[in-house]
Amino acid sequence: MDKESVKIGLIGSGTIGSGVLDLFRNNVERISEKIGVTLVLEKVADRDLPKLRALQLPEELITTSAEDILQEPEIDIVIELIGGIEPARSFIVSALEHGKYVVTANKDLMATHGDELLALAREKDLNIFYEASVGGGIPLIRPLKQSLVSDRIHRLVGIVNGTTNYIFTRMYQDQMSLDEALAEAQKLGFAEPDPSSDIEGRDAAYKLIILSGLAFGNSIDPDQVYVEGIKGVTYQDIAYAKEIGYTVKLLAIGEKLPEGLALRVHPTLVPDKHPLASVLNEFNAIYIEGDAVGEVMFYGPGAGAKPTATAVLADVAEAARSIRYQCANGIIEKTYSKTSFVPIDDLITSFYLRFLADDRPGVFASLAEAFGDEEVSLDMVIQKRRYGNTAEIVLVTHDVKEKAFQKALARVLDIPEIKPNPSVIRLLA
Amino acid sequence: MDKESVKIGLIGSGTIGSGVLDLFRNNVERISEKIGVTLVLEKVADRDLPKLRALQLPEELITTSAEDILQEPEIDIVIELIGGIEPARSFIVSALEHGKYVVTANKDLMATHGDELLALAREKDLNIFYEASVGGGIPLIRPLKQSLVSDRIHRLVGIVNGTTNYIFTRMYQDQMSLDEALAEAQKLGFAEPDPSSDIEGRDAAYKLIILSGLAFGNSIDPDQVYVEGIKGVTYQDIAYAKEIGYTVKLLAIGEKLPEGLALRVHPTLVPDKHPLASVLNEFNAIYIEGDAVGEVMFYGPGAGAKPTATAVLADVAEAARSIRYQCANGIIEKTYSKTSFVPIDDLITSFYLRFLADDRPGVFASLAEAFGDEEVSLDMVIQKRRYGNTAEIVLVTHDVKEKAFQKALARVLDIPEIKPNPSVIRLLA
Repeated sequence: MDKESVKIGLIGSGTIGSGVLDLFRNNVERISEKIGVTLVLEKVADRDLPKLRALQLPEELITTSAEDILQEPEIDIVIELIGGIEPARSFIVSALEHGKYVVTANKDLMATHGDELLALAREKDLNIFYEASVGGGIPLIRPLKQSLVSDRIHRLVGIVNGTTNYIFTRMYQDQMSLDEALAEAQKLGFAEPDPSSDIEGRDAAYKLIILSGLAFGNSIDPDQVYVEGIKGVTYQDIAYAKEIGYTVKLLAIGEKLPEGLALRVHPTLVPDKHPLASVLNEFNAIYIEGDAVGEVMFYGPGAGAKPTATAVLADVAEAARSIRYQCANGIIEKTYSKTSFVPIDDLITSFYLRFLADDRPGVFASLAEAFGDEEVSLDMVIQKRRYGNTAEIVLVTHDVKEKAFQKALARVLDIPEIKPNPSVIRLLA
Repeated sequence: MDKESVKIGLIGSGTIGSGVLDLFRNNVERISEKIGVTLVLEKVADRDLPKLRALQLPEELITTSAEDILQEPEIDIVIELIGGIEPARSFIVSALEHGKYVVTANKDLMATHGDELLALAREKDLNIFYEASVGGGIPLIRPLKQSLVSDRIHRLVGIVNGTTNYIFTRMYQDQMSLDEALAEAQKLGFAEPDPSSDIEGRDAAYKLIILSGLAFGNSIDPDQVYVEGIKGVTYQDIAYAKEIGYTVKLLAIGEKLPEGLALRVHPTLVPDKHPLASVLNEFNAIYIEGDAVGEVMFYGPGAGAKPTATAVLADVAEAARSIRYQCANGIIEKTYSKTSFVPIDDLITSFYLRFLADDRPGVFASLAEAFGDEEVSLDMVIQKRRYGNTAEIVLVTHDVKEKAFQKALARVLDIPEIKPNPSVIRLLA
């Protein structure tokens, strides 16, 4: 298989696909020279012929059938950029069965079927590269696999969803409501027409699964990730958090605890001095704590066609080198092992809580009693504003087990003077 | 050469060397399993026998002669951690001549002789890995070589010296003088007993040379780097900068301009909103701008035995995989080419300038004339304090060519009422 040129087939010519083609066309000679392998684009497949034609490629390079790539013996590397589970999964399986390396940006697929696909790749002495599946153009997968290979990572904390980070940034800076900020994000292309996967935290959860698998060397069961979206956060919460020295972020948190892995996605109060607090707008950042390395953070554009294309082509370069020099590089995932998971109920955090209450004598006493009985101790209690006979109360607890806090909260909400629908946001320890 | 175990010789058992040994002993089984190659520590050499003995290694593993490692046919990888130019350079040459891969943390050597050593490694079909030479535990070399291979980097801006960053952070936070902050840094081990290489910017310049070589693919002549240390910066400058929205940092800046590479190290006013402004204390960060990726930043501990050891062992893992799978990986530097350099005189920047002046009528008019004649236009002029008959004046220019600014400055300093020794700090564009 030792050969000077390596041939590439690309399936999917959407936003990222055309970004990859642009970058490839502009830089293919430089990349080929740098890696010592000539890269050749052999074929591009998309079911949508007009979209394919718009790429202005020679006719013989385009096809509406992915099979023309998967079954072409000349092609060494298949880039899968169609997204979603099927048919992407079948395409990748078929590519591996046909002896091809795979490069993919498919986060959903790698989060839910990554283990089995990587196992198949190993069985075939091939590999799947998926740097572009998390964090757009930020190098993350490769540093986790290679640079931190000697360390024991005990925590990773990421701002891995640009849409929600943009929304929180705008809400704070321009005193917007969540819906206003979302509408703006959609107008600017930072949010999808259907933003539910971002807003509800599912997109972040998939990325957390991929990163945690690499960081902790474990197979992750998606059902074990606690996921809470951003809908419950108001401008008021963001402003109050700021007053006490915190910035609200949607965080993906993975922790290796003595009892197992704890994985969660939820809005979080981040101390203003923490490096993650200054990650604004649509930017992403992943903060990693290792026993030896201490703290490292990777920051950059978490999405976008051009940044993501750099990650795809870095993977293509690595695959091409693996083919040229006959060496598999992705040998690290082979240690993926089973582990136990710690449910959110057993985690210990501090909580920010905001609610409205009828301003009657004795309310604070009932509140104190409810918290005291469940052994939830309070770090601060602030009465914020008064609307007629209604008071707005903000409080922050000391560290407490989730279960105990939720029990106390239920009791608090049973107090007749306390209004329903409080804001509850966990703090980053 | 295909073999299941790879043998390592370590030369230099100082701070980083013993950090590497600790991390190796704790994690060697996990690392070996992850990379699919058994790593074996074969020998440790140090001229200082008591220091060697303190490592508590079996007698047969230690030696006072590096030759016992360099000439041992069983050893596949030599880790060089003695630092400095000689004998480190001869050791690395000898290791390559004897067919061994090399891992080094030697910044001075790689900055000044990297090209020739890497050329020799290529000639021998071997490689030198030097991730630990810049940024301690922060993955930098590998992302630059691999992850950003498809992009064109046009600028890199780094806080690459932890000592000076710690000093500036402390000066601001505790209103210290530079000498007080330096003394504290030395007490805490963040600064060497002889801190001149840090304070004068030479340490940062070496790191800039290594990073720029990789980012821009050029051979760098160390004489082409403009280097200015931090001695001219006072607490007052840091405080005034803060008032106008800037943080003072010692930056290493590499830029690819149409006329060639511009490389410089100097104290710089960084806008508070820039991600580099929030890098505090002894932390390092490297901010990279690429045509496609946009902006990425890598943040972490720039020094320290444990973090640096993770970088050394990541390199050992890569070398071991290269040996096991018979594939060279460091093929990227082979495109190093000659380029022209842009002298600092021709660069365009804004300047912060602070000086004292006798408070007499006509001083501002002379000042305005001096700047006007050299076509230096002013963005802001602030009269800060008055001591008796002396006024303190702070001004910030618009963008101007260095040469023109320096000419105007010389004229300003010729005005009899203006005192000598102004503070001059460039702004980050």
